[in-house]
Amino acid sequence: MEKTENEVIIIGAGNVGTHLAHQLDKKNFTIRGICSRTIQSARQLAKYYVCESWTNAALIPPDAQYYFICVNDEAIAKVADAMPQTNGLVMHTSGSTPIEVLSRFPNHGVFYPIQTFTKNHETDFSLIPICIEASNKKNLNILKKLALQFSNNIIEANSAQRKHIHLSAVFACNFTNYMYVIAHDILNEQKLPFSILLPLILESFEKVTLMEPWQAQTGPAVRGDSSIIEEHIRMLSENPDYEVIYRIISEQITKRKNKEKTE
Amino acid sequence: MEKTENEVIIIGAGNVGTHLAHQLDKKNFTIRGICSRTIQSARQLAKYYVCESWTNAALIPPDAQYYFICVNDEAIAKVADAMPQTNGLVMHTSGSTPIEVLSRFPNHGVFYPIQTFTKNHETDFSLIPICIEASNKKNLNILKKLALQFSNNIIEANSAQRKHIHLSAVFACNFTNYMYVIAHDILNEQKLPFSILLPLILESFEKVTLMEPWQAQTGPAVRGDSSIIEEHIRMLSENPDYEVIYRIISEQITKRKNKEKTE
Repeated sequence: MEKTENEVIIIGAGNVGTHLAHQLDKKNFTIRGICSRTIQSARQLAKYYVCESWTNAALIPPDAQYYFICVNDEAIAKVADAMPQTNGLVMHTSGSTPIEVLSRFPNHGVFYPIQTFTKNHETDFSLIPICIEASNKKNLNILKKLALQFSNNIIEANSAQRKHIHLSAVFACNFTNYMYVIAHDILNEQKLPFSILLPLILESFEKVTLMEPWQAQTGPAVRGDSSIIEEHIRMLSENPDYEVIYRIISEQITKRKNKEKTE
Repeated sequence: MEKTENEVIIIGAGNVGTHLAHQLDKKNFTIRGICSRTIQSARQLAKYYVCESWTNAALIPPDAQYYFICVNDEAIAKVADAMPQTNGLVMHTSGSTPIEVLSRFPNHGVFYPIQTFTKNHETDFSLIPICIEASNKKNLNILKKLALQFSNNIIEANSAQRKHIHLSAVFACNFTNYMYVIAHDILNEQKLPFSILLPLILESFEKVTLMEPWQAQTGPAVRGDSSIIEEHIRMLSENPDYEVIYRIISEQITKRKNKEKTE
């Protein structure tokens, strides 16, 4: 394969790595190789892009332009240490890991797409905000140019801000999804399909595109409907896990409402 | 005003009453009158439909075809007791109140739209699932015909099922919105706009239209990324309310994941 100016190496063949490889390929970058802990996943992705694959980060060639580290947060430092020294731009894609973890590379940065990636479900990258941070001004410009090929929504955020963005995303996406898990369980026990909630869930989303979340708050707790709250807690008595979540969130909504009233 | 076969009386001028009146008016029902606790809100809505208004349920005329009780759950029984006897179809719109609360009326039922209504934000009723229940077969057919004028998604559910639907909706809508409230707070403290999370929130919705919520679960807890979880809990240490929610939901996701592994 002839060397190009846009050679990329992807480390990590999970959800982020897979989606990123796909996007980079679409944008005419050359996927030079895939490194993954397991040979199967490395080969599977590498086969798709007709490129090399490795399981050992030390074997990654040092002469690519871009290196995307898309492994779990806990593994980023280890992978970075194992990689060969390189003049390429080495980036990780994590919300919560500081940029310093890559400081042994002269050119390094962070490319954090604020999105949840799922295998076998393509995501429209053009709508995804991408948080970037770089080791210096020159690299920030390179990173910005790179990110703009994916999305028009580029956010320069330092490691502290990015950590907070990630934390907020855990609430807004992961925990929200767990609320759907509970709702699904409750309906499933009644042999009712989860799909009956989809219009409601979509409307909840649409409301927060139009107003601040607290203005959009509805339900028994914000209405102060204590008999419904008590009834719901009774209904959940056989599932203490769900009961405690119901109780705590309702209490916090009530508290905030009451605080607002007295202000 | 000349008497028609489609005369409706709305009791309660809150979010549900307002949206329902608007829809009924669009579907060529005649809004005969609005009853509300406060004369202001009754008159405001009545003015729009050029109809009568009352604050005392005892003054409601007994000769309309349909009566929609759209008041808080806690007030339904009281309103129903105060109303005059009527041969019209008397319905409440609550998820959690049993149909029996209306049993003094020969024709009664429940018309529960699974949706969250917000003032000044129109909702596409045609997409809303409507749960119906009626005192007898004849009334169920009348209610079904009525509901089909609003939506093609009609669900016959008894009071026990409806209660569970409402409970699931509290998790999927109200509690989900509270997760957005927390995310908004976290970002706001960093002077970052909540809008950066909207693509992520939309994607979370789209995923649960395609797969079961638990299959769509992502984030540090399901990945077993304990160092990130600890870091997030540290970041929330100044807000014990948010910290406890983070801790409990993460624990439950971890527990479920581990249970799945051992099965």
